[in-house]
Amino acid sequence: MSKYLAGIDVGGTNIKVGLFDFDMNLVCKGSVETFAETGAEEIIGRIAGAVEGLLEQCGGGLSELAAAGVGTPGPADYKAGILYSLANMPGFKDVPVKRMVGEALQCPVGFDNDANVACLGEFVSGAGSDVDDMVFFTLGTGIGAGVISDGKLIRGCGGNGGELGHMIIFPDGRQCGCGQRGCVEAYASASSTAARAMEEIEKGASSSLKAVLDEKGAISCKDVYEHLAGGDPLAKEITELTAKALGILCVNVLHFTEPERIVFAGGMIGSGDVLLDGIKRHFADQIWELKQETVEICFATLGGDAGIVGAAALGKEALGL
Amino acid sequence: MSKYLAGIDVGGTNIKVGLFDFDMNLVCKGSVETFAETGAEEIIGRIAGAVEGLLEQCGGGLSELAAAGVGTPGPADYKAGILYSLANMPGFKDVPVKRMVGEALQCPVGFDNDANVACLGEFVSGAGSDVDDMVFFTLGTGIGAGVISDGKLIRGCGGNGGELGHMIIFPDGRQCGCGQRGCVEAYASASSTAARAMEEIEKGASSSLKAVLDEKGAISCKDVYEHLAGGDPLAKEITELTAKALGILCVNVLHFTEPERIVFAGGMIGSGDVLLDGIKRHFADQIWELKQETVEICFATLGGDAGIVGAAALGKEALGL
Repeated sequence: MSKYLAGIDVGGTNIKVGLFDFDMNLVCKGSVETFAETGAEEIIGRIAGAVEGLLEQCGGGLSELAAAGVGTPGPADYKAGILYSLANMPGFKDVPVKRMVGEALQCPVGFDNDANVACLGEFVSGAGSDVDDMVFFTLGTGIGAGVISDGKLIRGCGGNGGELGHMIIFPDGRQCGCGQRGCVEAYASASSTAARAMEEIEKGASSSLKAVLDEKGAISCKDVYEHLAGGDPLAKEITELTAKALGILCVNVLHFTEPERIVFAGGMIGSGDVLLDGIKRHFADQIWELKQETVEICFATLGGDAGIVGAAALGKEALGL
Repeated sequence: MSKYLAGIDVGGTNIKVGLFDFDMNLVCKGSVETFAETGAEEIIGRIAGAVEGLLEQCGGGLSELAAAGVGTPGPADYKAGILYSLANMPGFKDVPVKRMVGEALQCPVGFDNDANVACLGEFVSGAGSDVDDMVFFTLGTGIGAGVISDGKLIRGCGGNGGELGHMIIFPDGRQCGCGQRGCVEAYASASSTAARAMEEIEKGASSSLKAVLDEKGAISCKDVYEHLAGGDPLAKEITELTAKALGILCVNVLHFTEPERIVFAGGMIGSGDVLLDGIKRHFADQIWELKQETVEICFATLGGDAGIVGAAALGKEALGL
């Protein structure tokens, strides 16, 4: 009897795998190294092996797997199930991931981008589990996002909806890796926050971060928030703009799908209350006065498990449930 | 046998009413004066009378009306069916419109804001009738908007989603009537376009529009586009910023729900190709290079009928169809 859902979260270093029951309770989980330099067949073989290993831990086999979901970074044609390429993984090129995983695991497979999948995870059993409308952001190298409206993930006509990190909020502003100028990602991702600090120091700004840059050759976002705690004025200026950009992003998101909750995730939320309070403060400064807004801005709760939970939920969706 | 849907489009001067069959073909239409100074009961009585009049034209009566839909400006609690107030209509204050219209017409009633209703009209039988994902803007005194994602109108957790005119695109920019700064509405509505021209002339800008201002005491958006056609440099500067603001709005909308079509409506589209071409040009300038975008930016096709068509579609929705 098929009673499990597998959630597969593909990253550049590790592939996380989890088995869930139909109430989305985690039964067991594990991870395998990606070995990014190997080819698609080998990697998908290791994924299948990891899922079978978990099924064996439960005393069963593939016949007990009802469906699986896979989350990967893009670019991909998620509707067609084809992953065009993966950063740092030369062996992945136009791979029909959905079909290959389905053949390996002999079950229906759902496939979506890692941000949508993490969003779905938080929606199913994390920070958004008690609402129908939420927007999710993950602050890392870039800004990933997912939008749940009336209980459903917004995918867009070509599966590329919810790319909110590339909303332009400072026209003609900083160059973004996507080719646009002034994207929120170009200001407020962990990488952009660190990059702005480095640029200011290179332009001669005085800061306790200069010693870090001189010693390590680079500054991390974590460094910036640590020096903010130490009272560094440049760190304050940099993180204020990060919070302002994210506050304006929250205003724009509220006016679009009117979520009940806006959830931030990703490594950068390790900066804690100083980040969250800053976003809330700038949101309050920028939002209209026409009506009182009650949207809750908060951090994600599932940590590193959001991807496997959301991927398992994708599997459930692939069953039409 | 109930075979008609009534669409009711409430404006400050006129109330438009249309009868439709279940395939959304217009059977007949009419309009009555709003007489804004009268009270809610009188106005709703006139609406009911107009609908009954149309039914009689078809040789029938109220028993042949299956459902009705009503579109009004806000603010309102559209879920609860209560209109809080209407500009220039002091008699409308916390009126349970949905219940009152339902009692008067003895049928289920759908109720939503005028921009959502016009969006629905264009989606059902206008510029978006062949797509599942569209975003709609109406450029007038303000910028109204509606979002259709995967065939459904996005309403948000409290019925106030799709207020895209209040997305901030120029932080710390012009003051908007909503209390925010830098909303797209504060730059690119018909009123804001005209207001920006007047401000520049008052600051001393040289323009052929100055004679209009001196003569009429005000400049309209239509004047600005007419003087653009006449080669006036200020009119060019003003309309370029309008087009840029709307182009950036299109970029942000594309990254959000990834519509197949973005539809502009409202009095301002009377400016024609020069407006549409400007929006498309700025969109092309601002959009990312990661992938080729095929979204079509176009004008609405239903004109003044969009409201009654969309309202009738709301009625159909109220029947669960």
